[in-house]
Amino acid sequence: MTGAESLLRTMAAAGIEVCFANPGTSEMHFVSALGAVASIRPVLGLFEGAVSGMADGYARVAARPAMTLLHLGTGFTNAGANLHNARRAKSPVVNVVGDHATTHKRWDSPLKSDIEALARPLSDWLRMAQSPQTLSADAAAAVAAARTAPGQVATLILPADVAWGRTEGFALPRTVVPPPPPSEAAVDRAARVLLQRGASSVLLVRAAAGEPRGITALERICAHTGARAVHDLVAPRALRGASVYPVTRVPYRAEGAVALLAGVTDLILVGAHPPVAPFAYPQFPSWLTPEGAALTWLAQEHEDEVLGLEALAEALRAPRLGAQPASVKPATSSPVPCPRGPLDATAIGCSIARHLPQGAILSEEAISNGPALAAQTGQAAPHWHLTNTGGALGQGIPLATGAAIAAGSDRKVVNVQADGSAMFTLQALWTQARERLDVVTIILANRSYAVLRAEIERVGARVEPALAGKLLDIGNPDIDWVALARGLGVEAVRASTAEAFDDCLAAALRRPGPLLIEAVLSR
Amino acid sequence: MTGAESLLRTMAAAGIEVCFANPGTSEMHFVSALGAVASIRPVLGLFEGAVSGMADGYARVAARPAMTLLHLGTGFTNAGANLHNARRAKSPVVNVVGDHATTHKRWDSPLKSDIEALARPLSDWLRMAQSPQTLSADAAAAVAAARTAPGQVATLILPADVAWGRTEGFALPRTVVPPPPPSEAAVDRAARVLLQRGASSVLLVRAAAGEPRGITALERICAHTGARAVHDLVAPRALRGASVYPVTRVPYRAEGAVALLAGVTDLILVGAHPPVAPFAYPQFPSWLTPEGAALTWLAQEHEDEVLGLEALAEALRAPRLGAQPASVKPATSSPVPCPRGPLDATAIGCSIARHLPQGAILSEEAISNGPALAAQTGQAAPHWHLTNTGGALGQGIPLATGAAIAAGSDRKVVNVQADGSAMFTLQALWTQARERLDVVTIILANRSYAVLRAEIERVGARVEPALAGKLLDIGNPDIDWVALARGLGVEAVRASTAEAFDDCLAAALRRPGPLLIEAVLSR
Repeated sequence: MTGAESLLRTMAAAGIEVCFANPGTSEMHFVSALGAVASIRPVLGLFEGAVSGMADGYARVAARPAMTLLHLGTGFTNAGANLHNARRAKSPVVNVVGDHATTHKRWDSPLKSDIEALARPLSDWLRMAQSPQTLSADAAAAVAAARTAPGQVATLILPADVAWGRTEGFALPRTVVPPPPPSEAAVDRAARVLLQRGASSVLLVRAAAGEPRGITALERICAHTGARAVHDLVAPRALRGASVYPVTRVPYRAEGAVALLAGVTDLILVGAHPPVAPFAYPQFPSWLTPEGAALTWLAQEHEDEVLGLEALAEALRAPRLGAQPASVKPATSSPVPCPRGPLDATAIGCSIARHLPQGAILSEEAISNGPALAAQTGQAAPHWHLTNTGGALGQGIPLATGAAIAAGSDRKVVNVQADGSAMFTLQALWTQARERLDVVTIILANRSYAVLRAEIERVGARVEPALAGKLLDIGNPDIDWVALARGLGVEAVRASTAEAFDDCLAAALRRPGPLLIEAVLSR
Repeated sequence: MTGAESLLRTMAAAGIEVCFANPGTSEMHFVSALGAVASIRPVLGLFEGAVSGMADGYARVAARPAMTLLHLGTGFTNAGANLHNARRAKSPVVNVVGDHATTHKRWDSPLKSDIEALARPLSDWLRMAQSPQTLSADAAAAVAAARTAPGQVATLILPADVAWGRTEGFALPRTVVPPPPPSEAAVDRAARVLLQRGASSVLLVRAAAGEPRGITALERICAHTGARAVHDLVAPRALRGASVYPVTRVPYRAEGAVALLAGVTDLILVGAHPPVAPFAYPQFPSWLTPEGAALTWLAQEHEDEVLGLEALAEALRAPRLGAQPASVKPATSSPVPCPRGPLDATAIGCSIARHLPQGAILSEEAISNGPALAAQTGQAAPHWHLTNTGGALGQGIPLATGAAIAAGSDRKVVNVQADGSAMFTLQALWTQARERLDVVTIILANRSYAVLRAEIERVGARVEPALAGKLLDIGNPDIDWVALARGLGVEAVRASTAEAFDDCLAAALRRPGPLLIEAVLSR
């Protein structure tokens, strides 16, 4: 078999089920080998930034590594922004980056670049494959690296002649070592803090925010000690909804985080890092832990947060909850009334709360409208909330696309998407159409980089109105999202009032396949 | 004034006239300072890959440095593929990349990345600004680096507090040192070769292919010695047309280059490097200089090619041409008949040959259709031909956009654009609409990565038809380019026959502003 086939057989044996791809000439033998490994599903993206965002979304929902196929250094670079976001989410992603044949790399051909240098700052693990005989072992090592807790981005560079060279057989995948539980000493330390100062303590979790058992343990601990449960901005997913024990997300804005943590004496870190402001602002600190507050680590990021929380609940002798812990309670019938009048993020959040099906996945890149939305969507039926973890724009559409590939046909995906960010990776809409994915995309059309208009004053700058119009508004001409979606094969409608939007969303969630709603926000 | 204002005043004094931008929070003081420096025109791009491609197109046409404004490491990464292409074209580009405030960089905030590591592999010059007082000198150094012959990509990283800090005055720009002429010894060596073996020699030029004086000198030399004139794949622009002395482009395909250079005994290199195949193929060499042929450098890449060619013509005592050298002869009335029947690249090339106005700019990213097109467009009125120099897809639309900004309202820009590549940076269409640029985009809609279908066999691979359909075709669903263009504010029409296309193109070139023609190619 070719090296490429031994690589793919190894990947398949190691649990890889999907290859998100944008191939080029140097990857033709890899593409050929995909024909021999039927268990890996190829999914084409029309731009590498869409490919990497899909991989991130898939990994967050499937809880198994995603694979990408990228073409040369510039293909990797195009994937870079969403790989940055994936790394912040600790999503397990294996990139296979095709390279020129080793015999060709001595020449300065037009597409040559230093792929290792380009990939290193965005990869937790990086290797240049050397021969077809060792390629299978490289593949096994790459998947093992991606799976290393809490999850990593692993990049394997594959020269064309290593892919097309001959080899025999393939390696068995490495044993996956599950993340270890936190030490007893760490559990005891956290328990002592909570017993002494529970009411002024905050438990800051990361991955546990997306795990029913994690939330159940948090509920037990908080009910028993008076502590509050908060989750990190970079949590890969959060389980939220009307009947779910609420775990507050650290606000993106520094002032919100300062307010949330005011008066806190102890921050118990569970797989999370102490919170930091996204940017420097003259009037707010960058380091958001209140002065004098103590930091206590229950779980390091490579440790099992859920086991840590369960051990902590036991150490605290926190009473067990009833037979139906919050995270699996059936959704109560929604008390949210139909929004009326002007269309804004609050109205859209209400409609989502009314119509989102239980078990749905809400991919949110709402930027300036995020807080108003989140205030409403917490009332929806239990769902997973996926957000932009790394702040690089253009995550939402591909994230929703990859999430839908992982979720299959029994879970709806709703992507609430700022218009400015949507423009960065709109190509992923086409993949939704080709793969007939159940994704409803809601474009929040305010025709502006509204977050920047708000940030000008916060960073102490002033911008002339004419100049702000030129660089911070994205109207003139207005982007027609209905046309863009249809151009990419996705049905689309437009709504300009709260009532019309509510009808559109309800209808969209009843039909299969992708649909886009351009929500023209009131100005 | 702020550091940002001193930077911009320096840039303006150094000849920067346009800032292609996609700003974020860390660039708000830079945006603010743009209000104080009216001579720099801000042009918004809705994705950084569009921004960098515009800068490349601007630099190639204006022959002065272009400036970009990018947001953090991921903004730079998004710009990366077209910066790779710009570097291959030796386009002078100055990137200003906003960074977190220096006081904030100690924290691992979500958007933090190692910008220097990300930018280094794609920058010829790189500096992290340290203080507002030295920022003006940094800016002068950046422009000087970009202008350093033959042209470079210079990246200045600008922490937010360096931008907002106070400083007095600004530096004068550095003196621009023009590229030196080649040495007399090099001229004499080339002359001796041509006098002895002119008929079996090839002159391989780079930048001279886009200069009337360069082409005139080539014509003199070739007429006198029997040598042939060829230009590099990575020439930033080529002057072509019915009445222009023909300088052949090195074919992209290795077999074409092998055929072109068969029997050549001497390759005279004029600012160009010896040709290399884009990829490794089992049946073709990577190094395309024929075995036994001698390489003679007339001009190194930092030297003035035109002065070298003129000196060579004089050393050869080549007769001067008539009062009207080829490159400035008026276009003869076109003899090209209207194409008829099925729509293919040849028909489109004929229509371009019929209707392209003199002095137009033809931005071509036609990929698999490139050779058939070029065979026809050589008959058009004299024009500049701009191509994808680095092979990273998604150059054509932004390149045409930036070229149109540089060209102003008196020169039409026509972008002949493969559909697969167009998807990478379609966002630039919106900038054409906002800036009301005279760009006609022709989408070659074959619904396929056709070049890859051709490459499979050439690299010795086989791909199952069903798999090829999944990964190499971009139909199912077909992309509706008329809808996409309208969605981005650009008028659009569709043509499916040669006659209809000819009518569309003629009409498009008569009206002002951007227009897109989806040319549905016969299959």
